[in-house]
Amino acid sequence: MDLLHSDTSYPAGSKVLEAGCGVGAQTVTLARNSPDAQITSIDRSADSLKEARARVDSLGLTNVHFRQADIFALPFEQESFDHVFVCFVLEHLSRPSEALAALKTLLRPGGTITVIEGDHGSAYFHPDSATAREAIRCQVELQRRVGGNAMIGRQLYPLLVSAGFNAVHVSPRMVYVDAGRPDLADGFTRKTFAAMVEGVRESAIAAGIVEPEIFDAGIQALYRTAEEDGVFCYTFFKAVGIESLPGRRR
Amino acid sequence: MDLLHSDTSYPAGSKVLEAGCGVGAQTVTLARNSPDAQITSIDRSADSLKEARARVDSLGLTNVHFRQADIFALPFEQESFDHVFVCFVLEHLSRPSEALAALKTLLRPGGTITVIEGDHGSAYFHPDSATAREAIRCQVELQRRVGGNAMIGRQLYPLLVSAGFNAVHVSPRMVYVDAGRPDLADGFTRKTFAAMVEGVRESAIAAGIVEPEIFDAGIQALYRTAEEDGVFCYTFFKAVGIESLPGRRR
Repeated sequence: MDLLHSDTSYPAGSKVLEAGCGVGAQTVTLARNSPDAQITSIDRSADSLKEARARVDSLGLTNVHFRQADIFALPFEQESFDHVFVCFVLEHLSRPSEALAALKTLLRPGGTITVIEGDHGSAYFHPDSATAREAIRCQVELQRRVGGNAMIGRQLYPLLVSAGFNAVHVSPRMVYVDAGRPDLADGFTRKTFAAMVEGVRESAIAAGIVEPEIFDAGIQALYRTAEEDGVFCYTFFKAVGIESLPGRRR
Repeated sequence: MDLLHSDTSYPAGSKVLEAGCGVGAQTVTLARNSPDAQITSIDRSADSLKEARARVDSLGLTNVHFRQADIFALPFEQESFDHVFVCFVLEHLSRPSEALAALKTLLRPGGTITVIEGDHGSAYFHPDSATAREAIRCQVELQRRVGGNAMIGRQLYPLLVSAGFNAVHVSPRMVYVDAGRPDLADGFTRKTFAAMVEGVRESAIAAGIVEPEIFDAGIQALYRTAEEDGVFCYTFFKAVGIESLPGRRR
């Protein structure tokens, strides 16, 4: 999504680590926006990596090297990267601070880390709906139960600062959708957000955290916000921090 | 606040109506940003107008004419203004749609309306706090009980469209505050938002909608978000619509 990625472009020859590339959804944009950077994309899942590699290959992108690795057991030398890029990863981790600290050791002095996360607590809409909020809460609660945090976006500044990065700058990227923006109503409200929440229906019901009729009413209310008189708001957060310059180590 | 006003400047000679100027907090910025426009600022309260006039006079601004008037009984001829400006007013009205319709009749064809409103449902923060959310809810509930809507910001698009304005464009103006922005932590999180919510303490307790200890804990939690590891987010909405051009009337 251009809103999140357009201002990230790494110089020719720079060594970039994408930590947690998953199936490569972000890798493609990263590689396109930095065509002459050397990108190393890691994920702990071999299956995801396979899919990511196929996706990147099919687009003819040749500047990405894939490697199976865990963020908490990184197989790289200290200070071996110029930049680290982390997108939609911290939300899944029970120890995001430790992950950032581990990634920090891989950066050369003066190198940067870029972190992008969503925040499900940033979603609000018209018509407002208690059941829609309840359906979203199900996703937050399910993610919490597996150790994650679906509202981590707002925390990027303190997380990066406490990990020791300097000059941390966070820029929120708000997605605002009304009927004057029909592409977003369809592409974001309906097909991204509402569909994502709808996707946890079985898990949420099985976990006993919602009644089926409440959840279904909530999903209906979410889709309702994409109609002619509806409005939907959601905010992503993008943070950039710098690894201390030599002589300025903290 | 520059975030809200910097992109509103009316041409020399244009006739501008500021509807609901209150004590002139916005009038000053409006008059400064459009020094050669003829601004008419109305409010139904004579006391507020007096204060607004004193404020404008003390700054040497000479392009504002004040007049006591009610938005629902406007003492102007149809199509007598080039532009209408409404800031932090609709949130107080039980019939915002009717107010917009009434204001619309005052605009010449091709004239614009600009509406700015906050949305208390857009506030979220770190550390998150149920009591802080409860304290904010008190303000929303009190405003609702006097016929207002403290979450009207998100509704500006459908409101302006249903009032018949054309080419309605809404731009959210998010205030994002972390410790890297100490001026905002002090000026916005503490002295604007938390102080405003704190101001309804007695009314909320008297109305029986909150226990004092819950409210006080909530206020403390709100101020807490302005500390070193805290984050605070709030969004204003600014909408501009155009009165139909001749021959394009709906």
